Amino acid sequence: SRLTAEQLNPECGDQRFFLSLFSGAGYHSESKAKEYKHVCKRACQRAVDQLKAGALAVEAVAAALVELEDSPFTNAGMGSNLNLSGEIECDASIMDGKSLHYGAVGSISGIKNPVLVANRLLSEAQKGKLSAGRIPPCFLVGRGAHDWAVSHGIPPCLSEKMATKFSLSAYKRNKRKMELAEKMDTGHNQTKKRRQSSENENGSGCLDTVGAVVVDLEGNVAAAVSSGGLAMKHSGRVGQAAHYGCGCWAENACNMNPYSTAVSTSGCGEHLIRTMLARECSAAMQSEDAHQALLEAMQNKFISSPFLASEDRVLGGVIVLRCCRCVEAPPSQNIQGILVEFLWSHTTESMCVGYMSAQDSKAKVSLPVSLTDKISFKDIQVIYKIISIFYLINKTLTQSVGVVSYYRVHKMYCIIFMYH
Amino acid sequence: SRLTAEQLNPECGDQRFFLSLFSGAGYHSESKAKEYKHVCKRACQRAVDQLKAGALAVEAVAAALVELEDSPFTNAGMGSNLNLSGEIECDASIMDGKSLHYGAVGSISGIKNPVLVANRLLSEAQKGKLSAGRIPPCFLVGRGAHDWAVSHGIPPCLSEKMATKFSLSAYKRNKRKMELAEKMDTGHNQTKKRRQSSENENGSGCLDTVGAVVVDLEGNVAAAVSSGGLAMKHSGRVGQAAHYGCGCWAENACNMNPYSTAVSTSGCGEHLIRTMLARECSAAMQSEDAHQALLEAMQNKFISSPFLASEDRVLGGVIVLRCCRCVEAPPSQNIQGILVEFLWSHTTESMCVGYMSAQDSKAKVSLPVSLTDKISFKDIQVIYKIISIFYLINKTLTQSVGVVSYYRVHKMYCIIFMYH
Repeated sequence: SRLTAEQLNPECGDQRFFLSLFSGAGYHSESKAKEYKHVCKRACQRAVDQLKAGALAVEAVAAALVELEDSPFTNAGMGSNLNLSGEIECDASIMDGKSLHYGAVGSISGIKNPVLVANRLLSEAQKGKLSAGRIPPCFLVGRGAHDWAVSHGIPPCLSEKMATKFSLSAYKRNKRKMELAEKMDTGHNQTKKRRQSSENENGSGCLDTVGAVVVDLEGNVAAAVSSGGLAMKHSGRVGQAAHYGCGCWAENACNMNPYSTAVSTSGCGEHLIRTMLARECSAAMQSEDAHQALLEAMQNKFISSPFLASEDRVLGGVIVLRCCRCVEAPPSQNIQGILVEFLWSHTTESMCVGYMSAQDSKAKVSLPVSLTDKISFKDIQVIYKIISIFYLINKTLTQSVGVVSYYRVHKMYCIIFMYH
Repeated sequence: SRLTAEQLNPECGDQRFFLSLFSGAGYHSESKAKEYKHVCKRACQRAVDQLKAGALAVEAVAAALVELEDSPFTNAGMGSNLNLSGEIECDASIMDGKSLHYGAVGSISGIKNPVLVANRLLSEAQKGKLSAGRIPPCFLVGRGAHDWAVSHGIPPCLSEKMATKFSLSAYKRNKRKMELAEKMDTGHNQTKKRRQSSENENGSGCLDTVGAVVVDLEGNVAAAVSSGGLAMKHSGRVGQAAHYGCGCWAENACNMNPYSTAVSTSGCGEHLIRTMLARECSAAMQSEDAHQALLEAMQNKFISSPFLASEDRVLGGVIVLRCCRCVEAPPSQNIQGILVEFLWSHTTESMCVGYMSAQDSKAKVSLPVSLTDKISFKDIQVIYKIISIFYLINKTLTQSVGVVSYYRVHKMYCIIFMYH
């Protein structure tokens, strides 16, 4: 039961957009929480400024990511986790729901904003073939990616400048922990030990990938993601942030799909790759009830996915945006209502999510550290229905109303906006 | 209407397996055709020897790929296309339908058999976590991938040894062609020119990726793919052969899926990535009529995919294997019939496909250079039905019967085996 334009108050004019972003799903210490909130707000504001000036979704999403990458507190661009060799290697990707083009870089070093290289790959590919009929690349890695970026005017950055006091001390701490663990393993049955040493060790800060989803004034969607990868990863390891269908996904509505969808993911790269979580969530979002669709996708396609049957803990978070024009608008009316639904969910301890709509004077940031009240699945459905009805009745409502649910191992949040 | 075990003649005993492989979809010159056929036969034989000795599908598929990579005529491993800088950088991946584990390397240099690195990543990941709870990588690229391989006992190989007379002369030819094209572009409207210079220039030899699909004695499936990538690609470019869901896919039957499926793809990497063709074909193979499902998948998910709307020519080929146990076997009978369906399809000029079953004394290789008779879609359906009925009646049939169809821009082949 989608809404008709008549049920909406046509007052907002052209300012109809929404964006959301996250700085990682993982464990956020109290001390870092404040910094995360700050950078999320700044990134929201930067993207909103661009959207207000008429930027397309894909430009706004890149602008938000640049701000997040530039923060030394996030595990992306500046301040990224160091790998096993003590180097920074970053992954990033971006997808434009309008053209369905995609660009990605993997394991790239010496570039301050990997998302800008991904975005440039996307825009270059849109220009068509290269000389002598060569097909332009959509995914570049390593040294070649770095050289391509520099030859396309993106300035290189000394790797030493990208490391921070925090990332260097984390590296030393992790190195010691590894050496200790390996010393303890010697003499034991290694294989058996390997399987057991799995509790909470992928904790502090190492999953703080950043990502964003945007719907612009024209109703186009875009998504992007950027990550320094797991701490102490092997050199050359590429995570979900550079993997098509795994790190981000964006698809405008078309004949077959009533909803425009944009998704960005965070968490353990290997889990997100093998389940192709971004694309799965996007596909799920075409069903009627967004909230239930995401609940089921997280449960069936991620937490209890046959692809992760051998994993003891499945770590991940998603932000999901979907929107559609209201179908029964009278042809005389130029302004159509747009229904925006924004949801996020994570299996990790916490996830720092910021969002801002055309109506908000400043960004909202949510960083739940622990949710102890367990609400049943039935309760959630009831809450969701009540909120839906509330929207139908209160026609002038432009503010968001959120529903928070806590379902077994993962947490769910849902916000509905309506622009009219 | 699947078959019952009673309709089958239980004579083949344990020797029930099938494998198929290809050495590229593209344009095959008459002179190279003979060499392709030879290497396909050798690779089939090598995998079959392993299967007869009880090897699992994933081991057999790797063995076939090694043989294909070692041929100087294929664009994989030895004899790969050179990139823009005159270097060889390879992509490869492998998927095990039993464990659903996956391993891939991208843009790797100085390793003779990239598929062995991908396979080693897969088997290492199956052993569980690394020291200090670190998650093992499933995808490594560039220098890091090379170093990981060497540290895991895979010998390095001088890059100069991997180039062949053929690949070096092709590089020089392509370089001249590029310089000429760029000279002609100077002074013109570059962007406009870029879009136009697209006819037949991605021709000779540059799409000869290799791949294979296998079902073993136990009914497990596996798939693998390996490629030197597009000729004159940018350094660091990663194609479909290293991309999860794009180059290969394998999934054993489970509660939700009645069929085990294995898929391997070849063609223009960017087209295969953006359509996720391997996974799409695998998903399509769960419907009743395999032939029609592949026809539709090639048409709707590839040739007229919205993701490739801006492309003037869509280049790709797939080999698809599916199998299922016959459902109504009486519980008293230990031997169940296995129905194996093997199909391939390509939009390219030709595709060199080899296959071999437990009953064949040697491999069959098919290399159609041109198909001029156009058969309508309805005709194909009729032929397919006739063959299906033929199988139902002729219970002792163990040989393959093929159906060839030519549907608009792509070609389809279909072979059904029955083991009993």
